[in-house]
Amino acid sequence: MSASRFFSDNAAPVHPAVMEAMAAANRVDTAYDGDALSGALDAAFSDLFETECEALWIATGTAANSVILAHFTRPWQGIFCHQEAHIEVDECGAPGFYAGGAKLMTLPGDGAKIDLAALESALAGIRRDVHQVQPAAISITNATEYGLAWRPDEVAAVGDVARAHGLKLHMDGARFANALAFLDCAPADATWRAGVDALSFGFTKNGAMMAEAMVFFGGSGGAGLRELKKRGGHLLSKGRFVAAQIHAMLRDDLWRANARAANAGAAALAGACGERLLYPVEANELFVRLSAEEAARLRAAGFDFYDWGEGAARLVVSWDQDAAAVAAFAGAIAAL
Amino acid sequence: MSASRFFSDNAAPVHPAVMEAMAAANRVDTAYDGDALSGALDAAFSDLFETECEALWIATGTAANSVILAHFTRPWQGIFCHQEAHIEVDECGAPGFYAGGAKLMTLPGDGAKIDLAALESALAGIRRDVHQVQPAAISITNATEYGLAWRPDEVAAVGDVARAHGLKLHMDGARFANALAFLDCAPADATWRAGVDALSFGFTKNGAMMAEAMVFFGGSGGAGLRELKKRGGHLLSKGRFVAAQIHAMLRDDLWRANARAANAGAAALAGACGERLLYPVEANELFVRLSAEEAARLRAAGFDFYDWGEGAARLVVSWDQDAAAVAAFAGAIAAL
Amino acid sequence: MSASRFFSDNAAPVHPAVMEAMAAANRVDTAYDGDALSGALDAAFSDLFETECEALWIATGTAANSVILAHFTRPWQGIFCHQEAHIEVDECGAPGFYAGGAKLMTLPGDGAKIDLAALESALAGIRRDVHQVQPAAISITNATEYGLAWRPDEVAAVGDVARAHGLKLHMDGARFANALAFLDCAPADATWRAGVDALSFGFTKNGAMMAEAMVFFGGSGGAGLRELKKRGGHLLSKGRFVAAQIHAMLRDDLWRANARAANAGAAALAGACGERLLYPVEANELFVRLSAEEAARLRAAGFDFYDWGEGAARLVVSWDQDAAAVAAFAGAIAAL
Amino acid sequence: MSASRFFSDNAAPVHPAVMEAMAAANRVDTAYDGDALSGALDAAFSDLFETECEALWIATGTAANSVILAHFTRPWQGIFCHQEAHIEVDECGAPGFYAGGAKLMTLPGDGAKIDLAALESALAGIRRDVHQVQPAAISITNATEYGLAWRPDEVAAVGDVARAHGLKLHMDGARFANALAFLDCAPADATWRAGVDALSFGFTKNGAMMAEAMVFFGGSGGAGLRELKKRGGHLLSKGRFVAAQIHAMLRDDLWRANARAANAGAAALAGACGERLLYPVEANELFVRLSAEEAARLRAAGFDFYDWGEGAARLVVSWDQDAAAVAAFAGAIAAL
Repeated sequence: MSASRFFSDNAAPVHPAVMEAMAAANRVDTAYDGDALSGALDAAFSDLFETECEALWIATGTAANSVILAHFTRPWQGIFCHQEAHIEVDECGAPGFYAGGAKLMTLPGDGAKIDLAALESALAGIRRDVHQVQPAAISITNATEYGLAWRPDEVAAVGDVARAHGLKLHMDGARFANALAFLDCAPADATWRAGVDALSFGFTKNGAMMAEAMVFFGGSGGAGLRELKKRGGHLLSKGRFVAAQIHAMLRDDLWRANARAANAGAAALAGACGERLLYPVEANELFVRLSAEEAARLRAAGFDFYDWGEGAARLVVSWDQDAAAVAAFAGAIAAL
Repeated sequence: MSASRFFSDNAAPVHPAVMEAMAAANRVDTAYDGDALSGALDAAFSDLFETECEALWIATGTAANSVILAHFTRPWQGIFCHQEAHIEVDECGAPGFYAGGAKLMTLPGDGAKIDLAALESALAGIRRDVHQVQPAAISITNATEYGLAWRPDEVAAVGDVARAHGLKLHMDGARFANALAFLDCAPADATWRAGVDALSFGFTKNGAMMAEAMVFFGGSGGAGLRELKKRGGHLLSKGRFVAAQIHAMLRDDLWRANARAANAGAAALAGACGERLLYPVEANELFVRLSAEEAARLRAAGFDFYDWGEGAARLVVSWDQDAAAVAAFAGAIAAL
Repeated sequence: MSASRFFSDNAAPVHPAVMEAMAAANRVDTAYDGDALSGALDAAFSDLFETECEALWIATGTAANSVILAHFTRPWQGIFCHQEAHIEVDECGAPGFYAGGAKLMTLPGDGAKIDLAALESALAGIRRDVHQVQPAAISITNATEYGLAWRPDEVAAVGDVARAHGLKLHMDGARFANALAFLDCAPADATWRAGVDALSFGFTKNGAMMAEAMVFFGGSGGAGLRELKKRGGHLLSKGRFVAAQIHAMLRDDLWRANARAANAGAAALAGACGERLLYPVEANELFVRLSAEEAARLRAAGFDFYDWGEGAARLVVSWDQDAAAVAAFAGAIAAL
Repeated sequence: MSASRFFSDNAAPVHPAVMEAMAAANRVDTAYDGDALSGALDAAFSDLFETECEALWIATGTAANSVILAHFTRPWQGIFCHQEAHIEVDECGAPGFYAGGAKLMTLPGDGAKIDLAALESALAGIRRDVHQVQPAAISITNATEYGLAWRPDEVAAVGDVARAHGLKLHMDGARFANALAFLDCAPADATWRAGVDALSFGFTKNGAMMAEAMVFFGGSGGAGLRELKKRGGHLLSKGRFVAAQIHAMLRDDLWRANARAANAGAAALAGACGERLLYPVEANELFVRLSAEEAARLRAAGFDFYDWGEGAARLVVSWDQDAAAVAAFAGAIAAL
């Protein structure tokens, strides 16, 4: 079954270590986020990122992104993001909802990386008056919507622009683990050392059940963050079960091992795709040219994936898919 | 440990049958709410309520209440509720957030039941013009914030007012199971047969992990419900694990058994409280007179509970607390 | 015609001096609020209030109240006000709209003055946690909805509570002129010296056409005020015509003269009402017992006024109504 | 003075006939929009547009656009507009504020006219699921931000797309009069006959003081419009003075005469600009190539205008600027 499923890492199961951690958390404990597991998140992420972190669990990536961005932005301000960013395209307007109508200000860029010149040009074009929406933040996605990893120096270039204009820099890390597994650098290098103020660190796609972390480097700075989370209905009353998932993912670098497994599968698949590839494969997603007829043949053979407009498809490898599962699909593609 | 904990049913563990159902759901499946377990909720609640239901899972009671009320209300309208209702007092303004600034219009009433005369008087006092916020819905809580169960005929009296004024009737059922266990009636009698349009059916306090159902009787009527849920960041990508919890709670009436156990514990405790009781004990909560000195003595003996203003306390019995656990606390109270 | 109209000071004409000032402003000038008349408001109010003021024009009282309160409040916070305050009862939820869903927290009190003990009790009852809406501001109305003037020491008592709890104090002064004409004190005494942070200073009811001032004592403190005004669509492109109205009202204390005239009429009318009066008459409004039959007789005689629930009526005297006009109505009431 | 001012038609004076109408409205009358002048708007616009219209006054164009668009759109939906549209660029996010966080979905197009192919492509690219913001309306500006008039058949092409996809079509007519003066067609042809559902009909730039009309063709369809206006603080208590301005502008086609005068001035100026013109001149705005040095020389000679990025300028002719005023500027440009 896992052999045939390449449409989304959200369809993957939960890692056994996460299930065990949830079972272990099944005891009487304080409600909401007053429990020891929730309380230990700051320290866990501070260790991982080699700096003081403030970290809160939350059940979805959409909520993580929205709460962080709303925390950084007043309703009359704006947030720069790529025109194909998840927050722009796939969250039903959640960031605008949480931020009281703040505007997403979209930018172009290859492979869903914000083009730096376009960013600077957009900034230069905004009059500093009350008629125009003034930017408050920049959001980048790592790995991007096309599965590319932002290199630390690329992030730093955006971070420099952010700092120069007094903007906060947010990283949507729904697949941060996959990006890090590719970059093979310290988590700090890809984030706060490059100017990132807050990270949506995704675990759900990578082996957790419903667990993301909102990680603020150097503190969340200012009131309102926990109110936004509560007000959004995201303060689960048995929050220890979410915190437990995150701890399980961090323990012994499970997050990295899972991401490496998924990336390795994607790399193996990439070999079979050759000229079909629309983008280099750096994380666990592949975007490939595929005619409707070819797609139909693969589906007839039992493989499942996602159409990506006309003549293209998205293939996603999950943490649980072993070499054999990938090999079967790779063979089917190579045989087209 | 469970012997000493009476401060919140949110602190209780998850029922083993729920844990097993979650483990069983740990397989590859469709993302979001496209899976079979999510899809089977309509039928499950339709069976339970003996009418066609539309039912969606959601992870918290605050979100359930807010999404339903926002679905029923336009931003310039209002929602009648008791002045001590959870939506008014304990949700950080979530309903106003989800409903775009809609107003909660608070009413008095004994035991946190809306006073019918006050409701009718409030309705009579609203001019039908553009200056005044016009009501769109009424929300009642069953069991109430003081642990009282709304009888079907009491609900029906509110339902009649709602229908006469074109208002939707919402029931916050964070402890619906406890109310039903007390009423010992058909779920339909306490809800749609009495005029309820939608129910927030809570399972988390009663043995689930993070699972509530938004149940619409006769359909949710109109676009926007799923968009509100998604936009709030509440469409979990592995939603099957929430649906699984609900199915486990519905199977063999586990929800009712758990609620009966908690109610029985509360009844036993009530016997020891005697004159201390501020309200009749109908569900699993007790509100008792308790001086600061008495509270300190109980806490020194290891019992944990919640202060309720000066000279009073809230005691909550959870589904997992057996007769012995309750007896110990009852004894300590009787001995004060 | 003016002889028969006692239903609202919004129905009154515009004072000739205001019309002249608008005509004088009818020249080419900078757009929005970049003109000299708009720019001179700070100084004009600083003079009047004997302290440094930041003052912005706006076209309606609802907008003035909403923009000020939204400037003082984050969406998850609350604003204390009287349960019959205009912002609660008569603005279609505008403050909640502008403040992103912030909650109005209503309090009782005689004559629509907030009861100080109720305020302190409400403050004491709020847990400082993320579940409960935390207050950010208090709004009082001077003159109140029942035409009573807040004395400087009464305001100061609320101001002390505000300061002690870190809350901003807003005064809705839709009829501030009438209150001041009654109090006969320095405007400073009734406002910032008593702890008021911002005033909605109404001119429209008192002889202007569409002109209110948002007056901040000691500066508006922090970004966002002008954005809220613009974002609400309240930055009129020919704003000089609004500023001109305010300057005309301030010139030679026209605002005070007009208010005195209206108050004098109300006082004369009060003499005829005697036992009918529900509240002392301190400004230009009277609330009187009046049976439906009596109301009908007065209306049959050509007098127009506003019903105030069953068996009562509201009578309003405007700046333009002379002694003869009032005398006629007084006579008719006396003759009932 | 008017000879030198070409930076904005918002800087122009108010037409004497409008001033007279406002003076004539200065009598006792019903408050808000209950007066006869407000009530006569429906009929006045129904006459002008040869169909049944529902028309409301409002004080600013930003408010007109925002209220109409919010009336057409639910918070989770979107509004197509040109990427340089006033609602996107110059209103501080007002439409998003009024519409509860609804998204503006921007499109390219020459001269700030939405490109039809881009619109259709955008529509085709939206998956009909809960993750993506679904469009509810299209907004076009006539005349456009670059002073171009939408021809009736161009509007109809957009109207066809709107109807085919169930979208409302809004026209921002801040300079509708100038567009109509150029098109020389029936107002109906440029609006409802071409599929427009609602028009923001601007009068302020064209000789009024603060008066725009929200005109709905065939009725505004559904509750909430007046609530949005009130809730935004836009229900002026002496609304008769706004209605009076609109009636004055409609009387004897003053709106058309003023627009023709401004357009004629722009045409005269266009002759002097020759190769400098970036766009054809169809209304009262010119966009011209102008070096910084040339701009400085014109300003030194006393002419005022607006820079439009680097190396370009915007010149606007107002209704009150006569041939001599324009000739002086034209001469100075020709002499560069």
